Formats: sequence, structure tokens, C-alpha cells
Amino acid sequence: MAQKPSIPKGTRDFNPEQVAKRNYIVNTIKSCFERFGFQPIETPSFENSDTLMGKYGDEGDRLIFKILNSGDYLSKANESAYNEKDSNKLISSISEKALRYDLTVPFARYVVQHQNDIVFPFKRYQIQPVWRADRPQKGRFREFYQCDADVVGSQSLWQEVEFVQLYDEVFTNLGLKGTTIKINNRKILSGIAEVIGAQDKLIDFTVALDKLDKIGEEKVKEEMRSKGISEDGITKLQPLFTLKGNFGNQVENLKTILSSSEIGKKGIEELEFIDNTITTLGLKSANLQLDVTLARGLNYYTGAIFEVSAPQGVQMGSIGGGGRYDDLTGIFGLKEVSGVGISFGLDRIYLVLEELNLFPETVSNKVDVLFINFGETEALFGLKAIKALRGYGVNAELYPDTAKMKKQMTYANRRAIPYVVLVGEEELKNNQYTLKNMESGEQEKCSLDVLIDKVK
Amino acid sequence: MAQKPSIPKGTRDFNPEQVAKRNYIVNTIKSCFERFGFQPIETPSFENSDTLMGKYGDEGDRLIFKILNSGDYLSKANESAYNEKDSNKLISSISEKALRYDLTVPFARYVVQHQNDIVFPFKRYQIQPVWRADRPQKGRFREFYQCDADVVGSQSLWQEVEFVQLYDEVFTNLGLKGTTIKINNRKILSGIAEVIGAQDKLIDFTVALDKLDKIGEEKVKEEMRSKGISEDGITKLQPLFTLKGNFGNQVENLKTILSSSEIGKKGIEELEFIDNTITTLGLKSANLQLDVTLARGLNYYTGAIFEVSAPQGVQMGSIGGGGRYDDLTGIFGLKEVSGVGISFGLDRIYLVLEELNLFPETVSNKVDVLFINFGETEALFGLKAIKALRGYGVNAELYPDTAKMKKQMTYANRRAIPYVVLVGEEELKNNQYTLKNMESGEQEKCSLDVLIDKVK
Repeated sequence: MAQKPSIPKGTRDFNPEQVAKRNYIVNTIKSCFERFGFQPIETPSFENSDTLMGKYGDEGDRLIFKILNSGDYLSKANESAYNEKDSNKLISSISEKALRYDLTVPFARYVVQHQNDIVFPFKRYQIQPVWRADRPQKGRFREFYQCDADVVGSQSLWQEVEFVQLYDEVFTNLGLKGTTIKINNRKILSGIAEVIGAQDKLIDFTVALDKLDKIGEEKVKEEMRSKGISEDGITKLQPLFTLKGNFGNQVENLKTILSSSEIGKKGIEELEFIDNTITTLGLKSANLQLDVTLARGLNYYTGAIFEVSAPQGVQMGSIGGGGRYDDLTGIFGLKEVSGVGISFGLDRIYLVLEELNLFPETVSNKVDVLFINFGETEALFGLKAIKALRGYGVNAELYPDTAKMKKQMTYANRRAIPYVVLVGEEELKNNQYTLKNMESGEQEKCSLDVLIDKVK
Repeated sequence: MAQKPSIPKGTRDFNPEQVAKRNYIVNTIKSCFERFGFQPIETPSFENSDTLMGKYGDEGDRLIFKILNSGDYLSKANESAYNEKDSNKLISSISEKALRYDLTVPFARYVVQHQNDIVFPFKRYQIQPVWRADRPQKGRFREFYQCDADVVGSQSLWQEVEFVQLYDEVFTNLGLKGTTIKINNRKILSGIAEVIGAQDKLIDFTVALDKLDKIGEEKVKEEMRSKGISEDGITKLQPLFTLKGNFGNQVENLKTILSSSEIGKKGIEELEFIDNTITTLGLKSANLQLDVTLARGLNYYTGAIFEVSAPQGVQMGSIGGGGRYDDLTGIFGLKEVSGVGISFGLDRIYLVLEELNLFPETVSNKVDVLFINFGETEALFGLKAIKALRGYGVNAELYPDTAKMKKQMTYANRRAIPYVVLVGEEELKNNQYTLKNMESGEQEKCSLDVLIDKVK
């Protein structure tokens, strides 16, 4: 039955060091979430298919992993689909469940299902894996974690202010200083579309604008023309391409452009509130920046739009994003519940911390001390000390076999264990331990009390 | 598109309180694992089907959740299976991946795949969900967590000793005193089968013996007879049904029964080593008990077998189990790697702690202080204090809307927030805060410094 084992493409094994580093990021995020009053929930890995299907567009539906029904699943197969061998049409009759595609739709489902038990406004966070049948590529996986914090049941802009602070807090605590929190507002985009007479082309317009960073001004204009946006409209847009300066200056320019649009002016007002408040409260290490080209899957958002980029010099896409969506739970029949939330990109944050060498030395949960095994009596004597050491929170272990000294020391070296304890005949007789510092090579004989003191 | 949302049967949503309590258990287990020198790994939620299929018997294969291939999956469907509409035969041609059924087989796969990077003996722990298409019932779910610690690459019995200590440590730290760690040895069972001349019926014999607690002596004997075990053999077994007394007494009885069996004597020797060592080292709150009826899916284990039961008076199946398996990785082509491991039953431990009221009060990550929102100026003033409080690790939040006082206080009550801060005109003027203790109802005016002191 021997076979060369492997894992499905787009998935990953994590070794102890990687798990420790990932946990460091997740725990930092978690403790910030909790300090800001968010509480954790968890939802099942798979949902009923009808909960997920139709929520992410056709492309999303295609990327959802479907779970085959158990037992004689073909007995309930749709007959005509089966006869036509139509994969797509057959699915719903042989698969009732699907793996979570993101955390937002399951959260909306959770809110509606448990609405009578929830105290609104409901501030929840959720850190769980999601699965997408995407083509795997560098930095894109079929299984990856999302770290989301959302508030539902309040339209207050104070939430947006808190999310800016929360981003700042998390990245500061991770030692990642100089991130840029970009902010925009869907209402600004609507206002611009209105002003240039392209309300019906809002999506085309923003999709094109969103690419400004990547493809440049001329290509964006070309795309807009190809989507039927008038030359006159594009001319009116010109100030957008050159919006420069600080938040205040940009807002003043926007006020000129959007003076005739009610919704545009509302968007400006919201942005100003957030900026003014953040200016008063101050940020620890992040910069808040207005970016009118920011759209992020616009269909979704109705107010603020956020995106975070890594400090200058690090080549990396966004490491966080989010925004306000005015009708999160409507898809499940609960109307008029406004939500706003942000997400952290665990995998990318990991890569950035790795690149900038920002993981603390102490992150990995290494063994602090290894007891060399010279035989049964010595091992038992050692285990008594190990028991005492663990009582002081020291990670300690006995090498399980009476192997050659060299083999045991190699084990200690390869696992980067800082201290080794040797107990031989003499130590047994004198009720002592020989403690060896693996870095300096120094060794000394000591009592249990001294051993504990040195190692803990 | 409105629909009444629900989740698949056998799965669960966890609310903030439940997540906090589950994390409390998991974190306790984790920190003990690490103190004992175990290191975490994580494996993907789904594996290639051929990694999992055939490893758990026919029943297991049936209970594995299969993931439908993406895209036009029927284009590669096995033709004859399709024409015969044979669900079982069709599976492998339309599904290449399956959800993890346990953590042991993925661990074996991990060890073989990464054997060149691993330092042996390899002590790993893994805490992740697994999925089984079992019929859901009370306490049995289709998605549940396993918490496993295993060592591979050493045959040393010191590992068995450490696992007994580890069980004791975890349950003691959870405040669950008086658990019973039952231990047996596959070699004892083999020895008994040999002595009664039923080597070829070892499985039938142990399956029957395993039921002694549930169905009683007479029914067990009946089952043995029906499986073809001789009356003479059953007579020889008689001492087994009445094995009483402490570990030492039971071992003495076993020595008499097994005097003619080499493998049986080896099993006794192993048990005695573990018992003697544990007696010398002492346990904190658990009892180690020999249980010769313990078999636990015998096919698997080759040496020690463990099972933990909750303290007397609690009606609950085993809350942990494990044992030694001499050829874990052989299924993936790496021979002669001995392993031994234990598992903790998270869901059952949760129920036991709940029943005995053993969750500490401080488990849930509640908000410590809520700032009432009386308007923009007051809120901004409050946010400055909130920022300072969070700097001291206090979980603090502002009520997002300028809602009626009553509504805001109801929110604080329902979320069991212990402190509420009120900032009105007067407080603003005097740079003060009114702090209300929600339990006693007392309130006082204070400065920011005093506020921080009181709340943190």
C-alpha cells in the first residue's frame, strides 16, 4: 500500500515554527479585537449550499467547494441533468453542503438565525479558515484564514473611527510601523459618477478607476471610453487623477468637483468626520490617507471603504481591507441592519513580518531544557526535576531513549534547545545536576533549586 | 431571496461565551503540551482521497466527507460506473479530495512527507477540527475538534509515563480532580488469547471483553461462546471477570494467568514499569488504574492502551484515550517508526466542566467598561479615555449611537458589562468622568487616573 504522500495543491502543512509565528499574529489580532469590545463567534466549516450559492456572483459560485452527499447520492440525482451529463445542473441534487467561502455570509446567516439572542449593536470577530477552488499561485491558496471584525446594528460613524484605530493598534503591536490606511467612500464614487453623467456605469467607472495604480492614467481613460463614458465626463474627472496633498487638501478639491451632488457631499462629510476625529485622537504608527480610486468590490459597500498597505519598500498587495455595507442580512430576510467591518490578511502579514524580520525571538514555543537519558535510575531522577521545572512553567523534557550521548546532543542542537541537563552516577550520589548552556558551552554542577533558578 | 437560514445537521454555531469556554480548555491543553515538549503542527482540512481512503475500514470510508471536483467534474466520470449509476464506484472519478477524518492519518502522512526535515523523536501536538458523516446524536457531531499529542520515533516506555503525567496535568489544571486514567496493554490481551487457545479470535475476544462494563459478565461469556471460544477457555478467563484490588494485586493475578505466555509476560513487565514509575513520581489529582477489559479499537494499538474517565458521579463516556501503535507510518511506506499518543475529547470535557461548574468566572472575554454616548463632543472626550484604558489592557468601548440612556444601559446589562462611564456637560467642563458600578449601582465622579485605577 506504499505510496508517495502529498497534499492537494493550494493547501499547506505548517511546521511548528510556522504555527508559532501564525499564532503570534492571530493572538495579537485577537487581543486587540477584545480590547475594542469585539467578541468571538465560530460557525461550521460547511454550510447548506443554498446559504452560500448566489451570494458571490457566478465566479464565486464556481469557486465554492461542494461536498458530495453521503451514501447512495446518485439515487436522488436530477434525472434530466444526469441524462444530459450536465455537471452544473446536477450539483444541487447530489450535493447539499459546501465549504465556507468567506466569513461574511456565514456571519450574516448567524445574525439572522440567532437574532433573538443577540444584543445589538453586535460586535463580533471571527478567525477561521475559508476555502476557494481558485487557481493556486504565489500567495493565493485554496485554504486560508480570514480574520474579520464587524459591527452590525449601528449606522454610527464612530465605528469607522474605531476601525481605523483598530488597524493602527494591531499593526503597531505587531511592530509593523508606517502602514497606510487608505480610506474612501462609496458615496464619493456615486457622486462622481453622477457629476460626469455615468450613474448607470458606476461599476464600470470604479472598476477602471481602481486600476489607476496598476495601469496608469491613460489606460484607465481608455477603459472608461471603451465602457461608454463620455469624453466630457472624462475631462471632468481630470482633477481625480492628480488629487494630491494631504487629506484636507484632497477633500477641498473633492468639494469643488462634487458641489452639485448631494450624495457626493454626504460622502465628503463622512470622510471629514473620520479624518477630524482621528486627527484629534492621534494614531500610533499608521497614516490615514484618502484614496478616491479605492473601490474594492464596490457592489458590496455602501459607505466607507478601507484598505491597508504595508510600509513603503515592501512589495505586497493590501494586508487588510473592509468597509460599510448597509444591508448585510437582507439576503436572509432581516432588513435594514447596517454593518461595517474590517479584515486582516494573515498570510500576507506573515510574509511582511518575515521580510522585515519582525517576529520576536521568543515566538516559537521551544523546549527550554532537555535531560539527557543515561539509564533508568538517572532518567527517573531527572523526571523528578522535570516535574518541578514544569511546575514553574518551564518547557522541559527527557530524551526518551538511552541513546548515545552524541545522538542526544545532536537532537538538542537541531531543536535549538538552550539548556541540557546531565545526570550521571556522580550527580545521583550528590543529588546534583550538571547544567550545560548550549550556546556558551559552559557547564556547572548545581542543586535543583539553582537549576530551576537558572532555567526559568 | 429571503429564506429561513439554518446550518447542516451535526454542525454547530458557537456564541462568544461558548468560544471563550472552548478556548479556555484548548489553551490549557496547549500550554501543558508545550510544557511537556510537544510542538504544534497543522495540516490541511482536506487531503487527497487516496491518503484517507482504506485507512479506517469500510465503515470509516463511508463516513468520510468527499469533495466534488471543481468545474465540469462529469467529464472525467468513470463511464461504466456512470452507466450503472453506481454511487460508490463513481466517487473516485468525480472526487479527488476528502475532509480529514481524524488527525492521526494526516500526521502519519506529514511525518513521511517531511521525514527529512523532522528531528526524531518527533513530539507533535495538533488541535484541529475533523469531519465525519456520522448520524448525529447527543454529543456526536459531524464537525468536532480533536486534540492529539503523539511521539514518533521512539519505543521508550518513558513516553507512556509522560502521557500519564500529561493527562494528570491537564485535568488538574482544568480543576477536574479525581479522573481515572485506565491503562491496559495489547500484549496482555494477546497473552490471554494465547492462554485460552484463541489467538485467531483475538479481536472477537477483546470486542466481547470490552463490553463487560456495559452488558455484564454473563452476556460477555455468551458472546464469546457464540464466537467459538471454548468453554475451557472461558473457564480459564474467570479470574479476569473478578480482577479486583489495586494495580499491584491485579498484576499478581495476571502473572498467574499469563505464566505460560511470553507476550503476556512482556505486557505485564511494561505495565509494572509504568505503574512503578508513576507511583514514585506521584500524580496530582488523577488515579492510574489497570483495566484488562480496555481494548479501544484494538487493531490499531500494539502496546499500551489508555482511556480516561470523568470523576465519579459524572455520567459521561471517556474524555480521553490513546495508546502505542508500532507501525504508524508504514501505510505511507516508512517502516518501523513506533508511535504513541493520546487524545483529549474537547466536547465531552466541555460538558463535564459545565456540569461540575468548573469554568472560572473570568473565562469570557467580556467588555470591562462601556462609555455612554451623549453626543459628539462627549463621545470624543470619552474616546480619549477609552484609548488610555485600552493602553492598560482594559477592554473598553463607546456605545456607537446617541441612543436613549435606557437603551444604552440595557445594552450594558445584557452584555454583563461591570462598569459604565457617563460623560455629560458637567463632566466635560470639569474634565471628569462619572463611573458607575453596574453591580452595586454606586457611582462616583473621578479623574482619568482614578478611572483607570478603578477599572483595570
